[in-house]
Amino acid sequence: MSNPNPVQQRMPTRGGVQEAAKSIAAILPPTPLLPVEINGARCHVKAESLQPVGAFKIRGGWWRLSNLSEEEKARGVVAVSSGNHAQGVAWAARKLGIAATIVMPRNAPKVKLEATRALGAEIVLYERPGEDRDEVAARLIEERGGTLVHAFGDPWVIEGQGSAGVEIEAQLGHAPSRILVCCGGGGLAAGLALACPESDIHVVEPHCWDMVGQAIAAGAIVRVSQNPPSTICDALQPDATKPINLAVLQGRAEPGVTVTDEEVRAAQRFAFSALNLVAEPGGAAALAAALAGKVPLDEHTVIMLTGGNTDAASFAETLFGN
Amino acid sequence: MSNPNPVQQRMPTRGGVQEAAKSIAAILPPTPLLPVEINGARCHVKAESLQPVGAFKIRGGWWRLSNLSEEEKARGVVAVSSGNHAQGVAWAARKLGIAATIVMPRNAPKVKLEATRALGAEIVLYERPGEDRDEVAARLIEERGGTLVHAFGDPWVIEGQGSAGVEIEAQLGHAPSRILVCCGGGGLAAGLALACPESDIHVVEPHCWDMVGQAIAAGAIVRVSQNPPSTICDALQPDATKPINLAVLQGRAEPGVTVTDEEVRAAQRFAFSALNLVAEPGGAAALAAALAGKVPLDEHTVIMLTGGNTDAASFAETLFGN
Repeated sequence: MSNPNPVQQRMPTRGGVQEAAKSIAAILPPTPLLPVEINGARCHVKAESLQPVGAFKIRGGWWRLSNLSEEEKARGVVAVSSGNHAQGVAWAARKLGIAATIVMPRNAPKVKLEATRALGAEIVLYERPGEDRDEVAARLIEERGGTLVHAFGDPWVIEGQGSAGVEIEAQLGHAPSRILVCCGGGGLAAGLALACPESDIHVVEPHCWDMVGQAIAAGAIVRVSQNPPSTICDALQPDATKPINLAVLQGRAEPGVTVTDEEVRAAQRFAFSALNLVAEPGGAAALAAALAGKVPLDEHTVIMLTGGNTDAASFAETLFGN
Repeated sequence: MSNPNPVQQRMPTRGGVQEAAKSIAAILPPTPLLPVEINGARCHVKAESLQPVGAFKIRGGWWRLSNLSEEEKARGVVAVSSGNHAQGVAWAARKLGIAATIVMPRNAPKVKLEATRALGAEIVLYERPGEDRDEVAARLIEERGGTLVHAFGDPWVIEGQGSAGVEIEAQLGHAPSRILVCCGGGGLAAGLALACPESDIHVVEPHCWDMVGQAIAAGAIVRVSQNPPSTICDALQPDATKPINLAVLQGRAEPGVTVTDEEVRAAQRFAFSALNLVAEPGGAAALAAALAGKVPLDEHTVIMLTGGNTDAASFAETLFGN
């Protein structure tokens, strides 16, 4: 698609991540870094599921909207999201007094649709699969004006997400050896790569939805296949990553890792029993890779648990599957 | 019962709570104080369910065992617990290299029995209802020696639990207006009363198991009735409070509040959907009282979510009950 916001072409920086971290620390306490033992190895889980909107997306939403000009704030923002970025943007928009319109798939979890609406955002639904969500957003902006807040392909969003890495280094007292990160379009992964230059970054994606891992391997954007298999990770289904994310991750990230639905469900059960945390499927992907032994672990390893927004019935079914 | 540890008769102090808080801060990061909106009121939830053993009991266990003499440490400790105090003592014992024997009811949640065993403690089972757990422990100590670590009637345990209040004041930046606290025997409630002298303390107990609330009202120890109704709050079933707890709470705590099983289940569902937290029934009692409108709430109110150790099947059933 054509880019309606040419200003987005600037590259995110480590300095920007550090500025974002200061701004976010003033409004949100750090999420806990919880010790955990996995397959005999002690490591850490960063519980972003405990953010006020239940996911790390509040970071990027806050930093992007805080950096709008007064004129842009007055025109409002448009975002496209399966639910967590929606809530992050809606939360920041409410706090800053900005009108927000969110394009969401009709099949997004009900809990995410309701939470986004409750934060005061206007919701426009589209069909997934079928419609191109970026086109729906571009059309909306053409009709109404407003600034697109892309879920991952935006320098401020990337810097905002990276603030989690600044928190992690402060909590650990040093740089992690490696970070396992649940990956949709690559916004958080890119932010962490900038925040923690000494750490290996392992992107973890659902089986057949590894658009970031494939792009890193190919050195070019790769689009999802025409008829991809379904995944329970509703938050990790991008059509493709964006050049800005690939540019940051290329040469920085380790080879990508993928996880199956069953591995993800096992990780949700582990988060329940070992950590007393509710993880949504996409939020448990990195933990799934750790439990399945797909990435080596040590006491300086951090696993991102990125979100916890899931319907009670789905979660109960996952628990019963034990 | 006769007290096998006369040294326990010293009274806990606010200074002791502050010392305990320093000792605990050196080994455990603060648990998060999460903002939440309940019936239109903004308030805070202290997520003690995120402690390494899944409950606040790690505080009292650590402070009590840290204060044993070298000779006492060598003789080992005995504790009686439905599961969370068991894990708190077992965790501290392992960290300090002390042998721990834990007396647990045969009908304690399987997850609590297994976790206690996994921490290296020896478990002795008793029948609940039927056997007097204090008598089982006294007999064990007579046979084997060792120091009894009472779950709530102990000055170090009370001071250790109170460290949560020191954390809360640091996190809020001031004293809470009131604290709603899930209450079994009254160890945490007494600790918080000492830690936060400016705050109202509201003890919340299961229907018909309000041994602390009744004792406060009567100004004397009240024992549970011969055939009390069952409660899903397995962690909140003391036969009676102890004089040391009553002495601290008398004149300090507000009139007690009780909650039903249904109110507790609704609170577990609320913790799941609004906070992405797993709360065990007893851990959700204070939240249940808040949701049911039984205590007034304001932005300086703190609700203790004291534990999250629950079996997957029970939790899934609670979720489906929505």
